[in-house]
Amino acid sequence: MTKIKKKIELSFKEYTEGILSGNRTVLSQAITLSESTLPKHNELAQKIISHCLPHTGNSIRVGITGIPGVGKSTFIETFGLHLTQEEKRMVAVLAIDPTSERSKGSILGDKVRMEKLSQDNNAFIRPSPTSGSLGGVAKSTRETILLCEAAGFNTIIIETVGVGQSEIAVDSMVDFFLLLLLAGAGDEIQGMKRGIMEMADAVAITKADGENVVRAEQAKREFDNALQLFPPRDGVWTPEVTTCSSIENRGIKEIWDTILKHHNIMEKDGVLKEKRKQQAKKWMHEAILHGLKQSFYSTDSIQKALHDLEREVVDGKKSPFAAADELLHDYLKNIPKHKLTGQ
Amino acid sequence: MTKIKKKIELSFKEYTEGILSGNRTVLSQAITLSESTLPKHNELAQKIISHCLPHTGNSIRVGITGIPGVGKSTFIETFGLHLTQEEKRMVAVLAIDPTSERSKGSILGDKVRMEKLSQDNNAFIRPSPTSGSLGGVAKSTRETILLCEAAGFNTIIIETVGVGQSEIAVDSMVDFFLLLLLAGAGDEIQGMKRGIMEMADAVAITKADGENVVRAEQAKREFDNALQLFPPRDGVWTPEVTTCSSIENRGIKEIWDTILKHHNIMEKDGVLKEKRKQQAKKWMHEAILHGLKQSFYSTDSIQKALHDLEREVVDGKKSPFAAADELLHDYLKNIPKHKLTGQ
Repeated sequence: MTKIKKKIELSFKEYTEGILSGNRTVLSQAITLSESTLPKHNELAQKIISHCLPHTGNSIRVGITGIPGVGKSTFIETFGLHLTQEEKRMVAVLAIDPTSERSKGSILGDKVRMEKLSQDNNAFIRPSPTSGSLGGVAKSTRETILLCEAAGFNTIIIETVGVGQSEIAVDSMVDFFLLLLLAGAGDEIQGMKRGIMEMADAVAITKADGENVVRAEQAKREFDNALQLFPPRDGVWTPEVTTCSSIENRGIKEIWDTILKHHNIMEKDGVLKEKRKQQAKKWMHEAILHGLKQSFYSTDSIQKALHDLEREVVDGKKSPFAAADELLHDYLKNIPKHKLTGQ
Repeated sequence: MTKIKKKIELSFKEYTEGILSGNRTVLSQAITLSESTLPKHNELAQKIISHCLPHTGNSIRVGITGIPGVGKSTFIETFGLHLTQEEKRMVAVLAIDPTSERSKGSILGDKVRMEKLSQDNNAFIRPSPTSGSLGGVAKSTRETILLCEAAGFNTIIIETVGVGQSEIAVDSMVDFFLLLLLAGAGDEIQGMKRGIMEMADAVAITKADGENVVRAEQAKREFDNALQLFPPRDGVWTPEVTTCSSIENRGIKEIWDTILKHHNIMEKDGVLKEKRKQQAKKWMHEAILHGLKQSFYSTDSIQKALHDLEREVVDGKKSPFAAADELLHDYLKNIPKHKLTGQ
């Protein structure tokens, strides 16, 4: 549960005017509002997002993932500063981490791990909600993308921790997916394990500095070969592999150039437009699914019955399907004109 | 939609007695009943499954997957015949293929592709339902597992076509997951692409005969190395890699021995029991999710509104979340005492 402090309860007008004028305090408050579990907060948040909708979509959305230890924070710090300073971009960094236990510490955490970027006037760093299912976190991240775009950020970076399902969610949020990998033992596993290799528009081998350079270049060649075997992404893009060093600020500009090249190719023939249309449709259906689950599991009678039924199922006393049917029947009996069957 | 012929409408007693006495005609009819989309069929099917429940669970459940061309049908034919003839097992082969367009042709198709096994008195081959979402196919496959076990089959083979999500569904159905791979170019991709490498309890390199033997042995070594890097499956099992030839009937017995070894290890300290308990719980929650989606999308008012809203979302005129909320609100207004919020 996100705590909503009194002071953030602005009016609809204060929210929308604040966001559209690029006021990042108001933007923060609006994001917090959209993350709230209170129905009245959600209702207002949806009104705000709908109002902002015509001002969204004018950004490049980039997903960045990699296992812990790959140097993700350092990379995003260096990459983000390059974008704000050299490329004159407005950068919002959003993190998805449904496993996170960091609560109040999270903003502090992000400030520490991206010290300079968090002080940059052209950057906005927002950690993921501190609790909730992936579905909930994904929904609020999508809403946050729209709010940040309405506030004038033209580069959205979605960071995931690379622990599994998050990457699939991010793939449906972004235009470009960057996979960070570490040279050395287990390279193949890093990508393979999460099945995200095939989602990557680019792979960057990090920490290509000092003694690591040779290994990084070798890893680059291996991944170059591996990636050629996948079909082109979105039908038009062959993934690229680069090496980079965040501490030496080497290879960083090249990654952004790759993203721009990708963006230009995707904008031809409306490929990006079509991709985003399909994503929007997916966001809608996932929000539906999330709402259905959320409503079901928060219903009083379901909560009362669930525990005992689960026990019976686990003990083999009741079939999982009979238990599901029992709960569904109880839940759905009030909904008119629907079919509830086994298929 | 599965067509239910008049003749299969047996009574509850006829179904349960037939199944428990191992009558495979009745078993087939019961499976068809459970696949039906008619509520009254589903209700009867659930009653039958509940009645059969005490007679389930006494099998070894094996998932087998591999991309087209890996020789899956030939492998299952040879492997199945080894089980029925040499190991004196009763074998049920169930296929999961939500993409399948084969309708009536599917049973004929399975008879052709596993010619001898389909004529074996100790084998039972059942294709997946000919239509429906993966959720629906998965649910009916799980029900079919229970019905087959109640009918006395002590070895259940779940075959997937290896096109993506199916393998994740199968992983939650089986005790042991066997990945078939072909030696040669793109080995890594075969497993990597579907992210199923980490689900494998064993990898079998197929077609290890003639000129292929050397390549197969080399592939075996590579995968042996790769698999060592994953944590032990279920905390107790390190995946094994073998080579086999279905046409020369070589390496087939060894795979079964591996499965038995795994089974014995898993039975120690109740690991298998605990795994199945968690699976049963998962089956229940997935059946709930499937039922919620199915009810929602089959509701008259939703069907009427969905198309237009989807268009507005795709055209950027409405936020995906506002559209979802609109539909959810309409759908859920009849359900008492639940929360519908953004989280």
